[in-house]
Amino acid sequence: MGKILEKELQELKAKLLRMGALVEKQLESSVKSLVERDNILAATVIDEDHEVNRLEVEIDEDCIRLLALRQPEASDLRFVTTAMKIVTDIERMGDLAVDISERALELNDEPILKPYIDIPRMARAARQMLNDSLDAFVNRDSELARKVTQADDYVDELNHQIFRELVTFMIEDPHTITRAIRISYISKYLERIADHATNIAEMVVYLVEGKIIRHMGKV
Amino acid sequence: MGKILEKELQELKAKLLRMGALVEKQLESSVKSLVERDNILAATVIDEDHEVNRLEVEIDEDCIRLLALRQPEASDLRFVTTAMKIVTDIERMGDLAVDISERALELNDEPILKPYIDIPRMARAARQMLNDSLDAFVNRDSELARKVTQADDYVDELNHQIFRELVTFMIEDPHTITRAIRISYISKYLERIADHATNIAEMVVYLVEGKIIRHMGKV
Repeated sequence: MGKILEKELQELKAKLLRMGALVEKQLESSVKSLVERDNILAATVIDEDHEVNRLEVEIDEDCIRLLALRQPEASDLRFVTTAMKIVTDIERMGDLAVDISERALELNDEPILKPYIDIPRMARAARQMLNDSLDAFVNRDSELARKVTQADDYVDELNHQIFRELVTFMIEDPHTITRAIRISYISKYLERIADHATNIAEMVVYLVEGKIIRHMGKV
Repeated sequence: MGKILEKELQELKAKLLRMGALVEKQLESSVKSLVERDNILAATVIDEDHEVNRLEVEIDEDCIRLLALRQPEASDLRFVTTAMKIVTDIERMGDLAVDISERALELNDEPILKPYIDIPRMARAARQMLNDSLDAFVNRDSELARKVTQADDYVDELNHQIFRELVTFMIEDPHTITRAIRISYISKYLERIADHATNIAEMVVYLVEGKIIRHMGKV
């Protein structure tokens, strides 16, 4: 029995990482579709979302079956219930990559406002956070998880910086307003992707150390 | 054993509804603090968030204990794991009410841009959706849950309408830009609260009917 449970937990981890890798790719492609004005790539991201959604349902069902048939105890039980919460976060990050692609399609239709520099920077940071948060989860590594929560401040700061810059554009030339708002949305989506990674990391710290660190930084 | 499980499930439902009622109150107060320019009320919402967070942890722990000690089967097992996902959504709605209050505090410091009419309308709809989604969950009422997913279109439409109106303000007078963007954020927060209620409703339909209706309306 112990062997079967262990094997199934390994499979669960592998599937979660596969789902995470897919969303990482979505995130990367969505921002690339903006920077390189590549509408076909944007459409691919939107299309791939079905696969992410399918994986979410599949992992959820795997977890339910594991709970029903293997009745894991103590830390294994918490691992499985945490996995069920984490897939929801990963799936919503996929949705946000779709949102980015939709704004990219709109922006690619209009003259470029300015070269994108901070947006790709934010995307790289958010992607690393997603990657690290899932690694932290499958390896029960609370130290790495804490690193993720710290990286969130950097992403928040970039978001504010982008926002201030865009407001300057809008005030100087009202013709830029629609485009500037769309770019500010993309920046906000990236910030939310980073928030989801932070949520995952906070769950990992709770799983491993039993300490609640969520809601500590913000009111 | 059956009796104990049933009693504990009833307690779980009651606690979930209590948490939902608290977030409903937060949502109502946050928008009231904006409309009536009441900074003290805004501060109350921010303060109450601790209680929401505490309830989230408590319900999660109740669910884990229930899974470990009672080993519920079939639909009871799915009910408990769904509850664990739902508390996360409720907690994030509470966070969004806090975000609304923070924007209200900023807006209350500046001259009023225009009377708020559509924002309270959106808030009422979102609040009803939260209420209905939780009622649908505890009563396993998939019909009510479907009503919630339909109401989401109304909130999305209001959000777009508010946004278009604000862009007009910004283009006509760049001095309104900062305020208009803050109001557009509040509209967006309300839309996200409605999205969370929709997520809950979709989980209820899946729980009751085994049908996946999430991701159907949007790509």
